[in-house]
Amino acid sequence: MSELIKPRTLKGFRDYLPNTMIARELLVETARRVYRSYGFSPIDTPALEYAEILTGKGGDESDKQLYRFVDHGKRDVAMRFDLTVPLARFAAQYAQQLGTPFKRYHIATVWRGENTQKGRYREFMQCDFDTIGTESNVADIETLLVIHDLMEAIGATFADGNLGFGIRVNNRLVLNGLLEKQGLLEQSVGVLRALDKLPKIGREKVVAEMTEHVGATVEQAGAVLDLAELTGDTAEILNSLEEMLSGNESGLLGVARLRELFDACGKAGIAADRIGLDLSIARGLDYYTGTIYETFLTDMPNLGSVCSGGRYDNLAGLFTKEKLPGVGSSLGLDRLLAGLELMEKVELASTPAEILIPLFEADRLGDYLKLARDLRAKGFSVEVYPEAKALKKQLKYSDRKGHKVAIIAGGNEFEAGVWQVKNLQKKESADVSGEELAEHLQSLLG
Amino acid sequence: MSELIKPRTLKGFRDYLPNTMIARELLVETARRVYRSYGFSPIDTPALEYAEILTGKGGDESDKQLYRFVDHGKRDVAMRFDLTVPLARFAAQYAQQLGTPFKRYHIATVWRGENTQKGRYREFMQCDFDTIGTESNVADIETLLVIHDLMEAIGATFADGNLGFGIRVNNRLVLNGLLEKQGLLEQSVGVLRALDKLPKIGREKVVAEMTEHVGATVEQAGAVLDLAELTGDTAEILNSLEEMLSGNESGLLGVARLRELFDACGKAGIAADRIGLDLSIARGLDYYTGTIYETFLTDMPNLGSVCSGGRYDNLAGLFTKEKLPGVGSSLGLDRLLAGLELMEKVELASTPAEILIPLFEADRLGDYLKLARDLRAKGFSVEVYPEAKALKKQLKYSDRKGHKVAIIAGGNEFEAGVWQVKNLQKKESADVSGEELAEHLQSLLG
Repeated sequence: MSELIKPRTLKGFRDYLPNTMIARELLVETARRVYRSYGFSPIDTPALEYAEILTGKGGDESDKQLYRFVDHGKRDVAMRFDLTVPLARFAAQYAQQLGTPFKRYHIATVWRGENTQKGRYREFMQCDFDTIGTESNVADIETLLVIHDLMEAIGATFADGNLGFGIRVNNRLVLNGLLEKQGLLEQSVGVLRALDKLPKIGREKVVAEMTEHVGATVEQAGAVLDLAELTGDTAEILNSLEEMLSGNESGLLGVARLRELFDACGKAGIAADRIGLDLSIARGLDYYTGTIYETFLTDMPNLGSVCSGGRYDNLAGLFTKEKLPGVGSSLGLDRLLAGLELMEKVELASTPAEILIPLFEADRLGDYLKLARDLRAKGFSVEVYPEAKALKKQLKYSDRKGHKVAIIAGGNEFEAGVWQVKNLQKKESADVSGEELAEHLQSLLG
Repeated sequence: MSELIKPRTLKGFRDYLPNTMIARELLVETARRVYRSYGFSPIDTPALEYAEILTGKGGDESDKQLYRFVDHGKRDVAMRFDLTVPLARFAAQYAQQLGTPFKRYHIATVWRGENTQKGRYREFMQCDFDTIGTESNVADIETLLVIHDLMEAIGATFADGNLGFGIRVNNRLVLNGLLEKQGLLEQSVGVLRALDKLPKIGREKVVAEMTEHVGATVEQAGAVLDLAELTGDTAEILNSLEEMLSGNESGLLGVARLRELFDACGKAGIAADRIGLDLSIARGLDYYTGTIYETFLTDMPNLGSVCSGGRYDNLAGLFTKEKLPGVGSSLGLDRLLAGLELMEKVELASTPAEILIPLFEADRLGDYLKLARDLRAKGFSVEVYPEAKALKKQLKYSDRKGHKVAIIAGGNEFEAGVWQVKNLQKKESADVSGEELAEHLQSLLG
């Protein structure tokens, strides 16, 4: 006899068992529904691409994370590490054919050979949506509406509508305008990286980083932090910003776009406490050039942002001379799921079936199967136990899986057309006639 | 300036543009809904596994198809080429924890570096469901019901309920019983491979292959073909089989299981013309040991089977000593989509949004966005054009994307609370008040 192979997964990879996978599918379906309701279309791109496409001919840093190899045809290939580079390649290839504005969502797996020590996985799913080919602020505003409606929908699905969250908005034009006025434009990457650390390390250390490592004066650093720490009513802050940035064209454009955004969101019905101006968020990436978004769960601020994104000037410069501006955001599926689990908002059932029909009399198999199919046609999820074992064993199975109701029927029940319906959570039973069955189940399952 | 990188995909890989992707998502969602309604639970496994796990320490043939490489940690890894081997590994690893019977579905991408000449892709999606850990014929019957209800649901989604299909069923025990009686058991793989070609090459050539290459006598080959070509009423065929196999225990068990299957399906409400006994299907794979399923579209018999599977004795013998019998099937997503496209059953819209709201007055942005959100809350998919361009341009965009209705509103309309609703397919317009809007749209969109 040959030796057995030990069943195991690679370091940094994991299996999704039914309970986790049911929750993940529910979250993905919620995102898909909201994206679609705004007219975003799904696309997909290959998991494997020419390495050159993914690295952009350079990119030492991302190289280390790439799963890269030579394929059967001697091609230098790699597995995608995000959905943004494939989108850039895709947009360059099809923008003419598809026309702009082009609104797409893409929900797919990506791979990074990163250090796994911090609980990071090497395989994870991204869930992005973007509007490409327009500079209109309407697309920025809509992006915020999508994030808002998505978080509300997630709250409705997982938390009976009671999921506290807040979306923080900023605009890089405002920050850049100030940097320009302060003569710090060339050091902007360093300044913004330091600024991003404000909530974690505090004002003093941020000033120290800006002066010691980035080359700003104490006065320059102070001006940046004064702006970042402006507080009060959004309208008042916007007025103060307008004064601070007077004479700086792009900075004032940023203020105007923020003003329009808050105004339109209010009119569109977004509650004021759901969105806030936060001048301290910069999202270190050099990539963003306009509006920036971050989303936090009220009860878990330390989880970090669960939905982030922003506006960029030029998506696909590596692949085409056509300038493709855009704006978008990405739902952090894994982080959000982890948060919902910690908040005990995820029901960890191991089956999507609400109802179990135990099997007693093998002779009546067709009748059991018909009963189940009739209920499925009415929208219920129903499992028939496949073996005519003792009821106790069948109910133990149900206990393990998490069905909510059992419909118990033997010969007498089939003859009389009356079923014993057992509420498995409350351990209550009722005799229900065939005509009343669907309604009774509906009332039990809500 | 640096040179541009040519945007392109690898040979054998493809992008999914919105029109194809919308259809694929719809098909996947339909499958997911049906699988769940029977209590199958979703799982997922990593795209990358230890190569040893996927090849089973040997497997020259599948080696060639594997995307295999050495990762950063010097591990010999490969991308999964199907979902069956990962299921075997998964089942061996978690069967104790999850308990049996275990019913799972798995919808995920797999990769094979195959020859692309025959229009085959190197990346494609599989859509499998299986019941593991029971030998009960109930699971075999349920598998058939799932295939049936899945095909009906696909017909309802894509073809207004008018998708002709037939499921052909056989049982390897019947074939093996005959081979045993004929003394051909040792050559069974060769015999079944030859038999699988019957519809394509005809009786004579199958007999030739069996006698010339497999080592059967003309009489033996004839007996196999006589059985495979039995025709008539299912009950009559089963009676004939019982005679032909008298004295052969496993062959008779196969007949009994088929008899129970047809009987129970009839009682469960499956129309007799949807399922048929077809003794000629063998599904060459040595892997199957019991019931076998194939599914054909009535109007496209040459497309091949769009949903196939069967029962197997021992799923995970490479990984565990625990014997795990099971039964399952796989929906051929790509093949079925290709068939539906050829039959013109796939609406190739490029947007999931039914409604476009053109933007006229930038000042009223908040009002447009509110109108759209109100309609989304009522279940409509609504896109607001992001730029206040000429109406003609906005409707041209709509033409390209495939929206069905436009809601045209300028200052007058907002003042009066009456919208101009344009049926974009029939080129008809109607003035509709705010209160009647949802109902009117419902009647237009069906």
